[in-house]
Amino acid sequence: GPVARMGTELRCQCIATHSKFIPPKSIQDVRLTQSGPHCKNVEVIATLKDGREVCLEPTAPWVQLIIKAILAK
Amino acid sequence: GPVARMGTELRCQCIATHSKFIPPKSIQDVRLTQSGPHCKNVEVIATLKDGREVCLEPTAPWVQLIIKAILAK
Repeated sequence: GPVARMGTELRCQCIATHSKFIPPKSIQDVRLTQSGPHCKNVEVIATLKDGREVCLEPTAPWVQLIIKAILAK
Repeated sequence: GPVARMGTELRCQCIATHSKFIPPKSIQDVRLTQSGPHCKNVEVIATLKDGREVCLEPTAPWVQLIIKAILAK
């Protein structure tokens, strides 16, 4: 919900990560959240252009490539 | 504002980017937003642990290193 988006998460937001490749062009934004007292995991949440939110695996090479692709545009 | 956080930005969110290095440990999360009809720029917005939001330059090497550091944790 909106609270999670204000940088005040009280717990982990992802219970599982999406394992299939998502083309960068279908992604609107990607949020990387550091681990901390609220959650021991780094979390990567992509918002797709259709409004869906999906959790991605921070260490997956394709996730890192997508992030690199967004930054390089 | 909250609307910007819902992936429905109607315009660019950043009017300038922070040029000085920010230590990854002071960053809570980083949001990468693709360019699109709402904004011709890729935008990188960091939320700091003190709640401040700062726009970062997507192509700056230190910004890319910070993102890599978050993902690698």
